[in-house]
Amino acid sequence: MRKIINDPVHGFITIDDELIYDIVSHPSFQRLRRIKQMALAYLVYPGAVHTRLHHALGAYHLMGMAIDELRNKGIEISAEEEQAAKIAILLHDIGHGPFSHALENTLADIHHEDISLMIMEHLNEVFDNKLTLALKIFKGDYEKKFLHQLISSQLDVDRLDYLARDSFFTGVSEGIVGYDRIIKMFDVHDNELVVEDKGIHSVEKFLIARRLMYWQVYLHKTVLSSELLLVNILRRAKYLAQNDEDLFATPALQVFLKENYSSKDLRDNFLEAFLLLDDNDIASAIKVWATHSDKILKELSTRLLNRHLYKVKFYNPKDQVDVDQLKSEVQKKFDLNDEEIDYYFLQDTTNNLLYSQQAESIKIKKKDGTLIDISEVDNPLINSSITEQVKKYYICYAQ
Amino acid sequence: MRKIINDPVHGFITIDDELIYDIVSHPSFQRLRRIKQMALAYLVYPGAVHTRLHHALGAYHLMGMAIDELRNKGIEISAEEEQAAKIAILLHDIGHGPFSHALENTLADIHHEDISLMIMEHLNEVFDNKLTLALKIFKGDYEKKFLHQLISSQLDVDRLDYLARDSFFTGVSEGIVGYDRIIKMFDVHDNELVVEDKGIHSVEKFLIARRLMYWQVYLHKTVLSSELLLVNILRRAKYLAQNDEDLFATPALQVFLKENYSSKDLRDNFLEAFLLLDDNDIASAIKVWATHSDKILKELSTRLLNRHLYKVKFYNPKDQVDVDQLKSEVQKKFDLNDEEIDYYFLQDTTNNLLYSQQAESIKIKKKDGTLIDISEVDNPLINSSITEQVKKYYICYAQ
Amino acid sequence: MRKIINDPVHGFITIDDELIYDIVSHPSFQRLRRIKQMALAYLVYPGAVHTRLHHALGAYHLMGMAIDELRNKGIEISAEEEQAAKIAILLHDIGHGPFSHALENTLADIHHEDISLMIMEHLNEVFDNKLTLALKIFKGDYEKKFLHQLISSQLDVDRLDYLARDSFFTGVSEGIVGYDRIIKMFDVHDNELVVEDKGIHSVEKFLIARRLMYWQVYLHKTVLSSELLLVNILRRAKYLAQNDEDLFATPALQVFLKENYSSKDLRDNFLEAFLLLDDNDIASAIKVWATHSDKILKELSTRLLNRHLYKVKFYNPKDQVDVDQLKSEVQKKFDLNDEEIDYYFLQDTTNNLLYSQQAESIKIKKKDGTLIDISEVDNPLINSSITEQVKKYYICYAQ
Amino acid sequence: MRKIINDPVHGFITIDDELIYDIVSHPSFQRLRRIKQMALAYLVYPGAVHTRLHHALGAYHLMGMAIDELRNKGIEISAEEEQAAKIAILLHDIGHGPFSHALENTLADIHHEDISLMIMEHLNEVFDNKLTLALKIFKGDYEKKFLHQLISSQLDVDRLDYLARDSFFTGVSEGIVGYDRIIKMFDVHDNELVVEDKGIHSVEKFLIARRLMYWQVYLHKTVLSSELLLVNILRRAKYLAQNDEDLFATPALQVFLKENYSSKDLRDNFLEAFLLLDDNDIASAIKVWATHSDKILKELSTRLLNRHLYKVKFYNPKDQVDVDQLKSEVQKKFDLNDEEIDYYFLQDTTNNLLYSQQAESIKIKKKDGTLIDISEVDNPLINSSITEQVKKYYICYAQ
Repeated sequence: MRKIINDPVHGFITIDDELIYDIVSHPSFQRLRRIKQMALAYLVYPGAVHTRLHHALGAYHLMGMAIDELRNKGIEISAEEEQAAKIAILLHDIGHGPFSHALENTLADIHHEDISLMIMEHLNEVFDNKLTLALKIFKGDYEKKFLHQLISSQLDVDRLDYLARDSFFTGVSEGIVGYDRIIKMFDVHDNELVVEDKGIHSVEKFLIARRLMYWQVYLHKTVLSSELLLVNILRRAKYLAQNDEDLFATPALQVFLKENYSSKDLRDNFLEAFLLLDDNDIASAIKVWATHSDKILKELSTRLLNRHLYKVKFYNPKDQVDVDQLKSEVQKKFDLNDEEIDYYFLQDTTNNLLYSQQAESIKIKKKDGTLIDISEVDNPLINSSITEQVKKYYICYAQ
Repeated sequence: MRKIINDPVHGFITIDDELIYDIVSHPSFQRLRRIKQMALAYLVYPGAVHTRLHHALGAYHLMGMAIDELRNKGIEISAEEEQAAKIAILLHDIGHGPFSHALENTLADIHHEDISLMIMEHLNEVFDNKLTLALKIFKGDYEKKFLHQLISSQLDVDRLDYLARDSFFTGVSEGIVGYDRIIKMFDVHDNELVVEDKGIHSVEKFLIARRLMYWQVYLHKTVLSSELLLVNILRRAKYLAQNDEDLFATPALQVFLKENYSSKDLRDNFLEAFLLLDDNDIASAIKVWATHSDKILKELSTRLLNRHLYKVKFYNPKDQVDVDQLKSEVQKKFDLNDEEIDYYFLQDTTNNLLYSQQAESIKIKKKDGTLIDISEVDNPLINSSITEQVKKYYICYAQ
Repeated sequence: MRKIINDPVHGFITIDDELIYDIVSHPSFQRLRRIKQMALAYLVYPGAVHTRLHHALGAYHLMGMAIDELRNKGIEISAEEEQAAKIAILLHDIGHGPFSHALENTLADIHHEDISLMIMEHLNEVFDNKLTLALKIFKGDYEKKFLHQLISSQLDVDRLDYLARDSFFTGVSEGIVGYDRIIKMFDVHDNELVVEDKGIHSVEKFLIARRLMYWQVYLHKTVLSSELLLVNILRRAKYLAQNDEDLFATPALQVFLKENYSSKDLRDNFLEAFLLLDDNDIASAIKVWATHSDKILKELSTRLLNRHLYKVKFYNPKDQVDVDQLKSEVQKKFDLNDEEIDYYFLQDTTNNLLYSQQAESIKIKKKDGTLIDISEVDNPLINSSITEQVKKYYICYAQ
Repeated sequence: MRKIINDPVHGFITIDDELIYDIVSHPSFQRLRRIKQMALAYLVYPGAVHTRLHHALGAYHLMGMAIDELRNKGIEISAEEEQAAKIAILLHDIGHGPFSHALENTLADIHHEDISLMIMEHLNEVFDNKLTLALKIFKGDYEKKFLHQLISSQLDVDRLDYLARDSFFTGVSEGIVGYDRIIKMFDVHDNELVVEDKGIHSVEKFLIARRLMYWQVYLHKTVLSSELLLVNILRRAKYLAQNDEDLFATPALQVFLKENYSSKDLRDNFLEAFLLLDDNDIASAIKVWATHSDKILKELSTRLLNRHLYKVKFYNPKDQVDVDQLKSEVQKKFDLNDEEIDYYFLQDTTNNLLYSQQAESIKIKKKDGTLIDISEVDNPLINSSITEQVKKYYICYAQ
């Protein structure tokens, strides 16, 4: 059992374990081929059409590298633990639906991590409980905490892969990360993942690259604008569907237009319905909706389809008066009632945190063996003045 | 007027012409965002999800480089000719539908180049005849033949871009082409595109890289298998639709299931219908068809959806007896009638030509100014022994 | 007149100007082929053997890109100014001797920029005063200040090239800089070079990458150690030479061992002597000195030759007592007198400044046309807490 | 014991074996830092200044990858064999002197491989016979022949590394080789190295890339010209030295100017003298010789120093008459006697073989387990028409 997969980012990815191969071949995993990793970012960066399946395979590859490296440093990791950690990272994002994070609350009010867990539990049944250890690691319940931290922390292989991959496919060279060097600097101390002090600058650079990718790519004005448009298209479609308007949709999407799933009240059929859904359902519907008789659904869908997006402006919350003024101008210009205007003039906030000293912080191991937080090394780049949450207010409106 | 677009392959692509910007913004061009350049190759190479829009922009960029280079060598190219050549290359592939070349004959019996021409003529009307010169160049009717050859010959910017782009996104480093060096070696002789003799090895390498991409990527067994499966899914769906079976499809796809467009008999609505069609229509339909009551449509669609593909074998046409034997085994195994077996056991040929001395051959300009064919230089790599068409026969069947 | 040069960093570098070609061909420029850009850093990073000639050509290439870009934005730059700016950047580092900056004060007490100026003035005579404008720009005396700033400021093409080049040849991916994007963001305001606000993150990233290259590469402990060893080898050799010890040296090096050139008292033959000197003179002498009868010269030379370097430790100046203690241990161990110990136990400081708001600061041009310092944008990464000079004290001693 | 070295070509190279670390640290290996891998090619490709040490480390890295891969396929390789194979590849080129292959016969008439063997035997003594197995593998005397073939055959890690490395540092993208894919395709059959048939195209591409690097880089006219100049400088210097002319040279070089070492008559001091020699001895002497009183030595040295090279022309041996004619013109123009002309007008041949079916040919392992030569697969690119030796005659003369 030995498959190699060409990956332009990491070279070759090897699968040499029967169970892992079966999981990768399972329809619930293959479905990730039909979900773009960066949602609508391709409207700005035409290369950003890579899929969640590709990212999952890439993170799995880095997990293998990290495990090899730690073993070379004398950390014991059994074959069973290796398999489990690799499965856990492969499946860490399997609960993403189409165009998450944008649609996360609109299609169904459930966090994607909860869905990932549901799917992993489902697969554990399918595969005769062979995923039990993977689940334990994923949930953070396993004693070797570093295995969980490799999957989910401020310096996990998930982030290392998506930054490398997203900068590769967008062509934004500023996001390039020396992931191979960082992995070579990984070590374990008291079952916790730490970084050798020779790796300080690489980690700083990683945090800066991530911040840069946020402001330049993930939270790019045009990306924000298109995602907000998408959210409101779905919001309008659900409104119409639930008021018995006739609306084209694939069977999979029909369910989500009619139902309001939420984590509090999750009917039995949710998972089955969810696993049928992907980008194609949304994209094919929007193309049809662009000719719908409902003026709002038609207008918004047409705009997204042809990339005729709303204008985005960041503003200072003190200037709410100006915002209100602009809003009534838009309302007047397009002759909209008080309900309709909320589809043509959108308001939202976005924020990003460079680094948090709280949850799953990054620990540097000094030569003398003591640990220190990355923000507390000598002359830290990541210091108190830049570790506060940056919050931006923006409006987005038809022109 | 100045837009820059990040391209991971070429760096930055600049658009600084109003008309070109308007063409790029037109829905018929934006539609190329929803058509994957390499069709189903992503089932083997997960990174190969880049779009036809991205390739068109890339080829446009290389056209700009080529024009700059030729001007530096004293070749006169007016601003109007530059704009026209750039428009022609931008639109050279606009007639591709979803999953061409696989579906080219199945959805409608018209060559994509004819459709490109139809769309360009349509756009020429939309843009007040400003595309007249571009059309002339595209059709090869313009006196400066080299402008046409840059768009369509055995060494055009179309091929330079798609080889560079496809090897980048698949990660198949063997396909990498030194396009910048080749472009620097371009020259013009009697209005024909030629290559300086310092560029011989780069051109040889380009032809070899192209051959390699064919056998390793474009004609990869699994890619052939999945495309043949797709063709037969559509064939079955059209059969059912035309026999009044109820079949899910987007409105755009419905038209093509019902109608049998062909270049000989092209009704008025063809272009309008065609411009609505993209990958999403096919992909969303196949997902629904995977649960259809027709056994064949269901089986084939489910297989493609979950990447449970047919086995492919190349064979020697002398061994047709063995092929027939295998076919009846498959028929028996799956309990199929004589019509059904043709969906479970598929036969086809594929071929590739390394280089042709005929149409639009590659001319090398020697230091003394004389021209010579690339296959006739000293110690040619591209010689008679390898410039024959290579034809492979293969079967593809359910297991 | 048209030459293209392969550059693994930038692709192809074109020289299409007769005068520039003649300057590049001049022995004083060709001499830069024999001076490594990164001095002894190759003892840590084996790939870092690229030359000052290569960097000069690279910076020249970026200057061409910058000029093209500014012209596209409507900034007027004449053909004469273009040629002059390109010559100025080609020659900006021509005053570097072997293993600058390490040997800058040891071989001769003159700043390399003063020597660059002397050589440019010399070449101006050789080339019939055709470098007059280049000199004016180089010295900052020309009215279009931005041309000077492209050569020498905190965001000049010199830095853009050397960061890109040094990270390429060392393989330190953390130093990669999106120089093409930064150049695309260049603009001119009141004859000063500014950066469009869309380029903020790229500039921040550039400053961070530079800081990282300093700590990880240029000021790497082993690099510091080897450079200090080299300085002391030369110091010892000069001491011996000036005390009439017989010492192997090339004629070019003999001059510098005997003479103590300084900017205050510069005899006529200095420039002639200087232009004969390169890395080979130093390297070939050290190899011979490794068998010299002087114990100190022999020991230090042998160590550098065979990469048997001194140990380096950073220390806190408060702990001078411990340093003195260690020093006497070393003196005892190697049985050294009070003069000799200063060759076996070396003390120095090193420092780096991330960004200075003073001299040649980086100005961002906002959409409304106003200028703002890079350290004063919203949520600046480059803020007051990290723009102070970082100074490190270190010792370096035989073991 | 664990060192990592940054390599821009392969990423990180790890040394985790005490003996290997000691060998790498030995002066005879460190000496390779001072010998450029590509000799004078940097006069055409300014980036081509990487060293033989760097190549040796790179080939060592690929050997590690190959061993890992073969073990994954079930081939048994003991820890001792791994160490020995790695040592053998590290030292395979240690017998190269400065500017081999150009100076191989001029400085001393001994093949570099014989010198490599001498040095390895010397090191075996130094390291208490721990290199015995490495020597056996290097000489091809070990039963597991594939270990020798990895070091020396038509598809060894030596070639894989130098093609990758030389194309990286020259920037000649046409030489890029998918070495990682080729290594993944390695297998062993009856103790012989073979390649899986999925790797056919990669191997073809490798052979083509190598051919291209020969004609475009290694045998580039200007490189040939400068190397021939160098050979004649040394030839002249030896002539003068042996006629008791006073001639600057480092002590190491003095020996080789005076002595005519040859493999038939090798005095005791040869190895000691050889190990002191590197590029710096040659380069520093030539700089001094550029002012020597001997007209020929001065002229040739000055030309090489300032890159004022001879013109090169390929010619057809039938046209010897024209060659003779040109020669007498040169003789007349520079007023040279019959002996002197042979320094101003040089004649030589160069040749390259794409692939040989003889010695150490490349075997493809088909799916059914049978072996076949790479030139005999279906539709071979490497066929009889291009596997003949290509020989070129050229002249090289002062202008």
